[in-house]
Order: sequence, then C-alpha cells, then structure tokens
Amino acid sequence: MENSLKNWLSLKKSDVEKLLDHFLPPDCEPPSRIHEAMRYCVFAGGKRIRAILLIESCRACGGDTDSAAIPACAIECLHTYSLVHDDLPAMDDDDLRRGKPTCHKSYDEATAILAGDALLTFAFELLSNWPGQNPSQLTAVLAKAAGTKGMIGGQMLDIAEPPTLGRSERVRLIHRMKTAALLECACRMGAICAKAAEVKHRALSKYGTNLGLAFQIADDILDVTSTPEELGKATQKDLAAGKLTYPGVFGIGEAKNKARSLASAAGEAIVDFGNEADMLRALADYVVERKY
Amino acid sequence: MENSLKNWLSLKKSDVEKLLDHFLPPDCEPPSRIHEAMRYCVFAGGKRIRAILLIESCRACGGDTDSAAIPACAIECLHTYSLVHDDLPAMDDDDLRRGKPTCHKSYDEATAILAGDALLTFAFELLSNWPGQNPSQLTAVLAKAAGTKGMIGGQMLDIAEPPTLGRSERVRLIHRMKTAALLECACRMGAICAKAAEVKHRALSKYGTNLGLAFQIADDILDVTSTPEELGKATQKDLAAGKLTYPGVFGIGEAKNKARSLASAAGEAIVDFGNEADMLRALADYVVERKY
Repeated sequence: MENSLKNWLSLKKSDVEKLLDHFLPPDCEPPSRIHEAMRYCVFAGGKRIRAILLIESCRACGGDTDSAAIPACAIECLHTYSLVHDDLPAMDDDDLRRGKPTCHKSYDEATAILAGDALLTFAFELLSNWPGQNPSQLTAVLAKAAGTKGMIGGQMLDIAEPPTLGRSERVRLIHRMKTAALLECACRMGAICAKAAEVKHRALSKYGTNLGLAFQIADDILDVTSTPEELGKATQKDLAAGKLTYPGVFGIGEAKNKARSLASAAGEAIVDFGNEADMLRALADYVVERKY
Repeated sequence: MENSLKNWLSLKKSDVEKLLDHFLPPDCEPPSRIHEAMRYCVFAGGKRIRAILLIESCRACGGDTDSAAIPACAIECLHTYSLVHDDLPAMDDDDLRRGKPTCHKSYDEATAILAGDALLTFAFELLSNWPGQNPSQLTAVLAKAAGTKGMIGGQMLDIAEPPTLGRSERVRLIHRMKTAALLECACRMGAICAKAAEVKHRALSKYGTNLGLAFQIADDILDVTSTPEELGKATQKDLAAGKLTYPGVFGIGEAKNKARSLASAAGEAIVDFGNEADMLRALADYVVERKY
C-alpha cells in the first residue's frame, strides 16, 4: 500500500502539473520576467496536496473530476503565492524552498513580491473562468480561507504576538488558520464542483480541518527531526526563530500522538462515503507518515 | 463649476468612505493587527477616483448606483493594496503617502506585505458577495486588469527594463498597464452593474483608457511641478529613481498637451450618453486640472 500510494500520488502530482502548465501564461509572453518568475515558483516542486485534495473530494462526492481542474490550479497558485511571500526577507527570510533558491533569491525582492501578487490575482482570474454554475461560490470560499480569518490571519498571528492567548491555544489557532483553513477549503471546493449535498460538505469540511491540523503538526515534527537534504529547505528554523510549534509546546511524543489521532478523526469524518473516498482515506494516513 | 465639482467630489469621496467603513472588518476583530493595518491604509486618504468612476459609469448607463457599492469598495481595496506594496522598501521605498507614514513605516514590512495581500484577497471576497447576477463577470474583469497584462505587469515593466522597447513606447505601455487598465476596469465594472448594452461597454472602455492615460501623465507632471507639502509625499522621485515619465521623455509642454488631448478624447468617447454622464465629463477635465 505504501508504494502504490506513492505511485498514485506521483501520478496525480504530474496530472496537476500538466494542468498548471496549461493554464499559466507562457513565460515567453510579455512582460516575460513576471511570467517566468510565476512559473519558477509554481514549478519549483511541492506535493500538490491541496489540488489533489480538491480533485479527490470532488470524486468522493460522485462529481466529474474534470470540473475540478480549474479550481485545483487556482488553489495551487494561491498556495504558491503564500510560500513566495512567506519566504521574503521581511517575513521568514528563507533562501531555499524545495531544494532550490527561493524566488527573491533567484530573482529579486521586488519581483518576488509582484510574482506573489500575480499568483494570488491569477487564482481568482482562473476561478472566474470556471465553466460550472455559480463560480462565485468557489471565489467566496477561497477568499475567506485565504484571508484574515484564515491563512493571512494565521501568518499575522505567527509573526506578531497577541498578549491575550496562552501558548497552547495560540499554536492551535495558528495551525487552524494558517494551514487547516486552506486544506479544508480545498475539500469544500471539491464538494462544490460535485454539487454535493450539504451533509457531504459538512463531512468534508470536518475531514479537511482534521487533516490540515495533522498535516501542520507533521510539518512541525519534520522541521525538528529531518535533515535539510531530506526537506530541501533549512530545518530547525522554527526553534531558532522562537516560533511556536506543536512539538515545541507539547513535546515530540505528544505531537506524534496528536497528529495520528487527528488523521484518524479525518478518516472517521468520511466513514459514510463509498469507495470513491478511498484515496482521501489513504491521504489521511499519508500526511502523518510522510518523510518530507 | 470648479468649486461645485470639488464639493461634489468631496461628497462622493465621503460616500465611498462610509461604504468602505461598513464593509471592512472592524479593527477590533481578531487578529486585530491585520485589520487595523488594512484600515490604516484604506483610510489614509486618497481621491477614491476609481470607486467614483465605477459608480458614475453605472449611473451613466442608467443603472441603480446601489448595485455599484460593493464593486466600488472592491476596486478601492485593490487599488490600496497596490499602493501598499509599491511603497515597500524593495519597490519604490516610500516613507510618506498622502502626508502620512506608509504602512511599513507605521507598522513594519511584514505587516505591510500581509495587509496588501489581505486587501487584494478582500477585494475578491467582496465581489463574490455581490448580489447582482453573475458576480464572476466582475471578478474576471477586475482580475485581468489587476494582473500581469495590466497593473502588475506595468509595475514589473516599470522596475525591470526590457531591452526590446524604446523609451517612448515603453512609457506609454507602462502608463497603459499600470494605471489606465484599472481606471478602464472601473468604468467597465460600472457598465456591468448597470447591465449596459455592448455599445456602452465599448464607449466607457475608451473613455476609461483615455482618462487613465491622462490621469497618469498629470501625475507625472505633478511629481515635477509640486512641492512635497502639496502632494503629501516625496516629489521628483521618478527623476531620482531614473524612472521613465511622460514629461521626462517628451518634455513638460508636450506632456501637458497630451494630457489635455487625452481628456478631451475621453469626453468624446461618451458624447452619445445623456445628462447622466455629466459627472464623467466633468471628471475628464478634473483629472488633468487637479493640483494634487
């Protein structure tokens, strides 16, 4: 199973990358520098987990996965923008991402700011061209998850300490906003593509939140236990930057237990789905067992 | 006329600001730092010319201007994000905007990057809640004008020299992409709100492009001829930064002539509209005669 899941994920990743290549403006198109930088960031690697979750959530609800292609690319572009801006010197100041120089290292800071802005804008442009009914339902869900009550808000909390919350509440809130909101959003967008009933939306929302929290705890654990070669980026940075992490607050053992119990709660949330949801079930195990 | 137009503009500006205050998240809402920073940037002043153009274009097409409220706020938030990111040290490195410290000066760089990202995201969230038919038509027009074929592309050209274009072609292209695209977009969004016929869309698109080009040339002229006190920001920065400007390439006299002829072309584009377009006509004169 381990190997067949890996093969399947690598196949899905390559499908998503073909779609991204199809939709992103060619890098020869003027102004070529911005299009080159966008493609550099998008094709620097990555697991494409948000796009795959979106497509698989659509499949799990019995939808036509072709209808998930544009939304899957949109969420991947949006995720990439967030990495480009997070890596900037004024934010996390990272030189490497997925083993390659980050955008501001490979180009310059101004280009990295603009490439991030362009990927965020392009995500919404893509959605506006979605051929299904009511594309603005997708826009609404994505903008909310990416905004100040979701991803951006989580990043803000992560870099500026609010005095009102304790460490354990704060790390949970940051994980929920910074990571889980967008993974949950991917699942909900898949359900929208499939025109799923409300009960399926609710189940996938629960699945996505639990999966997202498990994913971020696993990320925090990998930052402590991996080498830079394995991760393709600097490790132990959270500790050095004085950032709150789940293992930092609760210890490695407790963090591992929590990640496993969240992954299992994710699986339980979709227990009533049929075989079409098997890949979502496998993904729940994968996010806590992955090595990178 | 001069005075009554000024009074009318100040009234419209205050209407737009009431709408923005209504729609933006309150600054006490957590995470409060990001909401405070968004409001700080949005309420730092500004002429609200894009929002007013959108509302007046809707009126000129016989539409209900209430339907233009959300799109007008969306385009103002999007414009504000572009100023916040343009002011960053890695971009134009400006300390003052409208007489107040820029966002990264008042907060810090990380907060300014996030506040810009949040305003861009919020613009699309607002549009997704537009109660009219087919909000994604508005999203499509705005995302395109703000993207790499419009505003972001223009900013990219402005900071990175492409070797293939001469100075005069380049300054025209930068003005068209960086400024005119979004002003044209405001007019087209107004026409969409009014469910206007195609012929009105085309006329307003021409009006908006000419007005936008006139507006940017007037901006370049003010940068040379005004004092920092009059403009509320550093002047003669374009020259110092070696940036291409219309007066820099063609001389002040030729620039003034060009701005006037563009404003008059804007007026001609809407010659077939009725009295409802009178304010659009007055705005065309205003953008080249304004002192700040």
